[in-house]
Amino acid sequence: MRIRIDLAYDGSQFHGWAAQPRLRTVQGVLEAALATALRMPEVPVVCAGRTDSGVHARGQVVHFDVDPGRLSEAAGRSARPPLDALVRRLNGILPGDLRIRRAVEAPAEFDARFSALWRRYAYRIADAPEYADPLLRGHVTHWPRHLDLGTMNAAAVDLVGLHDYASFCKAREGATTIRTVQELHWDRDAAGIAVGTVVADAFCHSMVRALVGCLVAIGEGRRDVSWARTILEQGARGSSVAVAPATGLTLEEVGYPPDAELGARLLVTRARRSAAELGAGDE
Amino acid sequence: MRIRIDLAYDGSQFHGWAAQPRLRTVQGVLEAALATALRMPEVPVVCAGRTDSGVHARGQVVHFDVDPGRLSEAAGRSARPPLDALVRRLNGILPGDLRIRRAVEAPAEFDARFSALWRRYAYRIADAPEYADPLLRGHVTHWPRHLDLGTMNAAAVDLVGLHDYASFCKAREGATTIRTVQELHWDRDAAGIAVGTVVADAFCHSMVRALVGCLVAIGEGRRDVSWARTILEQGARGSSVAVAPATGLTLEEVGYPPDAELGARLLVTRARRSAAELGAGDE
Repeated sequence: MRIRIDLAYDGSQFHGWAAQPRLRTVQGVLEAALATALRMPEVPVVCAGRTDSGVHARGQVVHFDVDPGRLSEAAGRSARPPLDALVRRLNGILPGDLRIRRAVEAPAEFDARFSALWRRYAYRIADAPEYADPLLRGHVTHWPRHLDLGTMNAAAVDLVGLHDYASFCKAREGATTIRTVQELHWDRDAAGIAVGTVVADAFCHSMVRALVGCLVAIGEGRRDVSWARTILEQGARGSSVAVAPATGLTLEEVGYPPDAELGARLLVTRARRSAAELGAGDE
Repeated sequence: MRIRIDLAYDGSQFHGWAAQPRLRTVQGVLEAALATALRMPEVPVVCAGRTDSGVHARGQVVHFDVDPGRLSEAAGRSARPPLDALVRRLNGILPGDLRIRRAVEAPAEFDARFSALWRRYAYRIADAPEYADPLLRGHVTHWPRHLDLGTMNAAAVDLVGLHDYASFCKAREGATTIRTVQELHWDRDAAGIAVGTVVADAFCHSMVRALVGCLVAIGEGRRDVSWARTILEQGARGSSVAVAPATGLTLEEVGYPPDAELGARLLVTRARRSAAELGAGDE
């Protein structure tokens, strides 16, 4: 039986998603809680977006497999459906900076990583004292100079589409850096905070934060609007783009096809993956 | 020269607003920073709403007086206007859980406490796992049972208006408990979090949290809709209403009259205050 879990975390105190010996990671803490809740020796999970150290998530998705009998047994005498009981039980075990939002049975073809059609990240910046909000300081970056979102949006147009994003990616042996960025724009929310929204089929390592670093340099007037295109066409990562701090970045949502199309989607992703190591979902 | 400062704080690590020996309070930390920034032995401030231990603020307002020469001197060689330089300087001194949003010169008749026409508080509750957001856990209370906002709003109608709120106030010798609650309603925000909005001319001690405690008991079905009126008519604080946790409460905004009406407003508040000790702005 395949289970899909939607979860949210404050990344500040985690060394990123991926389990690592002796480091507190989201995967490590989650798998340990699942093992306790289900009384299993280990419960390996697969996630949609392997967030980097300090990066947050509101819409992370994972899948794992469990024997239905084991699930009912773990629910014990709870009057709730076994998966609701599991959510309550996990949230009782987990620390406050990691919360399970829901658990549902998924089709056998559902794969949190390879079924995903797109990932949506948000990057938040308070660029003036009047927008500073101590209640949100854990996931909003402070910027000491005013940002012109109009200029940033004009530059962002050049970064949307199917491109080789090598200039915005940490190089990784044998991995492609070709991605489709579907959306990239900046808006101010009701409280005045600058929110950058980035949607792509997948991201390579630290790509969102490099895109943000490039646009912020333009927004504060240090660089010209055309600089984004110049960097993109460079085709290799240089030192001129500063990677924006992890604090401001949140994985907000992952999009999946309807259940009936999951099988077809998996074939497409696997074919593409064998053609070129995709490294889907890294950030 | 009278200065108005708008500030925001995460109340978690403060023992409330009011300065107390050996305790970390918002007033204590703010006055110390002002004394450092202005190089004055002490800078007493007056605030709009004396928030209780653990209560947050996004729209707190204070005033204090300073000699214009001292202000220019403190700004030093900054190219910014002296009050902008003061904001930058203060935010450089203050810890991350207390931020200055702006500083402006105010008319001599402006009094952060007595000029205020109304205070608006918000109380936030995540009442289901799917609304849990670790990024907001510092100012959103978790509630283990679903709340019916429709029932809570129906009950809230009885708590709006000019009433004696003694049943919702900690008794204080010689202080009136008569207040005008102008607004009290519950809505879900875009993320599903239940937000209670309360606007009143002033509040007595722990009044918002007692109103919330009463309505939550109704919303989760433990009490009938008419219970709010029953409690209000009781006329004295009993043990049946649980005061909701401080974590969920934020002072969002304080309303003032236009500058031209400040003098008249002050006369009204002072007259009322001498007639009956008002204790304006406590929470």
